[in-house]
Amino acid sequence: MNAERKEPAYLFTDRQVADKSEIARRFLETRNRLNENVDKAGNVLVKRFYNIDHNTYLEGAIPATYKEWMGLVVSAGLRCDDCIDYHVIQSCRLGATRPEREDALNVALVVGGSIVIPHLCRADEPLTELYS
Amino acid sequence: MNAERKEPAYLFTDRQVADKSEIARRFLETRNRLNENVDKAGNVLVKRFYNIDHNTYLEGAIPATYKEWMGLVVSAGLRCDDCIDYHVIQSCRLGATRPEREDALNVALVVGGSIVIPHLCRADEPLTELYS
Amino acid sequence: MNAERKEPAYLFTDRQVADKSEIARRFLETRNRLNENVDKAGNVLVKRFYNIDHNTYLEGAIPATYKEWMGLVVSAGLRCDDCIDYHVIQSCRLGATRPEREDALNVALVVGGSIVIPHLCRADEPLTELYS
Amino acid sequence: MNAERKEPAYLFTDRQVADKSEIARRFLETRNRLNENVDKAGNVLVKRFYNIDHNTYLEGAIPATYKEWMGLVVSAGLRCDDCIDYHVIQSCRLGATRPEREDALNVALVVGGSIVIPHLCRADEPLTELYS
Amino acid sequence: MNAERKEPAYLFTDRQVADKSEIARRFLETRNRLNENVDKAGNVLVKRFYNIDHNTYLEGAIPATYKEWMGLVVSAGLRCDDCIDYHVIQSCRLGATRPEREDALNVALVVGGSIVIPHLCRADEPLTELYS
Amino acid sequence: MNAERKEPAYLFTDRQVADKSEIARRFLETRNRLNENVDKAGNVLVKRFYNIDHNTYLEGAIPATYKEWMGLVVSAGLRCDDCIDYHVIQSCRLGATRPEREDALNVALVVGGSIVIPHLCRADEPLTELYS
Repeated sequence: MNAERKEPAYLFTDRQVADKSEIARRFLETRNRLNENVDKAGNVLVKRFYNIDHNTYLEGAIPATYKEWMGLVVSAGLRCDDCIDYHVIQSCRLGATRPEREDALNVALVVGGSIVIPHLCRADEPLTELYS
Repeated sequence: MNAERKEPAYLFTDRQVADKSEIARRFLETRNRLNENVDKAGNVLVKRFYNIDHNTYLEGAIPATYKEWMGLVVSAGLRCDDCIDYHVIQSCRLGATRPEREDALNVALVVGGSIVIPHLCRADEPLTELYS
Repeated sequence: MNAERKEPAYLFTDRQVADKSEIARRFLETRNRLNENVDKAGNVLVKRFYNIDHNTYLEGAIPATYKEWMGLVVSAGLRCDDCIDYHVIQSCRLGATRPEREDALNVALVVGGSIVIPHLCRADEPLTELYS
Repeated sequence: MNAERKEPAYLFTDRQVADKSEIARRFLETRNRLNENVDKAGNVLVKRFYNIDHNTYLEGAIPATYKEWMGLVVSAGLRCDDCIDYHVIQSCRLGATRPEREDALNVALVVGGSIVIPHLCRADEPLTELYS
Repeated sequence: MNAERKEPAYLFTDRQVADKSEIARRFLETRNRLNENVDKAGNVLVKRFYNIDHNTYLEGAIPATYKEWMGLVVSAGLRCDDCIDYHVIQSCRLGATRPEREDALNVALVVGGSIVIPHLCRADEPLTELYS
Repeated sequence: MNAERKEPAYLFTDRQVADKSEIARRFLETRNRLNENVDKAGNVLVKRFYNIDHNTYLEGAIPATYKEWMGLVVSAGLRCDDCIDYHVIQSCRLGATRPEREDALNVALVVGGSIVIPHLCRADEPLTELYS
């Protein structure tokens, strides 16, 4: 029943994103280091969870780029700065545009209310570095 | 900076949705009655909020149908059954497909964890009525 | 450092509220039954928690009526229907007015976003019964 | 690095629990029906998620009974009635005692605050049926 | 139906607050810079949302000072440090007193539980600078 | 009805934990300073709340060590870094083991979803310092 999944065609690598934005670079470095720790810990269930997580955002019935925006909106609604940063980077790598960014932020703001404003404000700096 | 907004081209009316699903019909009736109460209350700020809410989901840089899926995912992440039902109905009216539904539910489940399962299970009945 | 606390001067009893609103009556009945169960369970820490809870909303530096509105707003922000109903009843017993109600709901809506709308809609019925 | 996992030795079957508590019976019936729907939907990622979920609560370094109490406490903290009911039933099947129940509820109440009280009150009825 | 709204009579300007508290100063600087970014982004719906937000806390049926305390309590309940800091500053500008502060924190703590303690602790420093 | 409560037999003092982990040391220092501020503030209801909080985690029907893991799991589910750090330290002081740690993190991850991953990653450093 699942549409066939495949890796999305990224327009930019992590490194290219890191070169455009210092915030993205620091985020990716931390993320890589932490993922190595998870690997070393060898917790089987955590690894399976990461596998599901990876597969969820592949190209499918809904294009990967919109799934990254979905991820951003739910991350904003649940107010997780790291999750927001991750999806900002991923959507950028997939070639997302500035007007798409505004559309997604509007959904996050109206659903989540003023309580998400500080998170959207903090996301503004990497977003501006990556989407200009 | 906002892409021009316009009403999406719905494939189905509320009534057609209500005819397909008893759950949707009850949901829409309750929603209409409550909206009338809001209208009568005459609270200016609430009305302005509803106006922003309406405009957020119009056709824009991100197609309306994907914004409805975004709304569904963030509603599931924040675990609001009524909000989930609303976006289920709206995405159906816009012609969303069953595989899209699975893709969206996967994002909700992996982001939100097992705590969203009861909400996704409750959404299964209207989803099945509307997407088969 | 705490301002002296005293029981607020209620304008209405629980019974008078129950006579005005069927929803309030059912809510109070259920609440009383459940409180008796808690009493019977004899859990000391739960009883102490209930004692703090009771003392929190007494007349103090902030008038009891505004503390009930605070309770309503945070209950709406955290999306707890029973908590909302409880503070609706309490603020009514303290003589709160319809315009105060609109002011409080506006704070809840703007802070919490569209995700609180279903809760505010469900609260509308007892609010209307009690504040008209 | 994971301790070896195995199915816990349940003292009671689902059916025995259902016979003791009407609430538990209805909960289990609904849960079974919904799980069949999930099976039929054939969403691979959802099935993998369910598999992780199942494995998480097996006997391990932490005894299964305490993991069920953990599940109950986090469910109460996140205020999910269905999740609370599920872990109430599971801990009962594993032979959990009434004083353990009070200990677990105290953690939920102090961490989550008065906002969890309505959920704990709703859980009181099945808990009383199953733990007396 | 809305009571007439007007700007509250602040006892202190932002600058006076910034002079009393280094934390408040940094908070206000960051906030101003971010608000300029929002202005430049030119997102119409975000601007309208900010407008509702501003109007919500004006003098009305509930005095502005109590609405700021409401904002603080719901921000604590939803555990948003920036939102707490903002309402701490605003209530101070409106002449709020130390005993009012304790009353408001009590509501936040009892509703939100021990999970809000770290946030209240972090708020203690600016609160102490501003309310002594 | 409460099982008799007594202080758990800690295997390590706060100081010994602080000597093993720089993160734990900083956390405990900050916590102590903030607790002194709370003491000085003299808010009676806050003190009573702290008293309940302390009593909740004593040895009881559920062993203290498992209650600390419960505290960690609900803290992760509610995504509070400070609360996670606190329970990491407490469980370490009670002699908790690395496999127990993995079991507890699995519950947190599967219940809370990918949104808790950044919190679990941040907890990894003190956990590794304390559990190796």
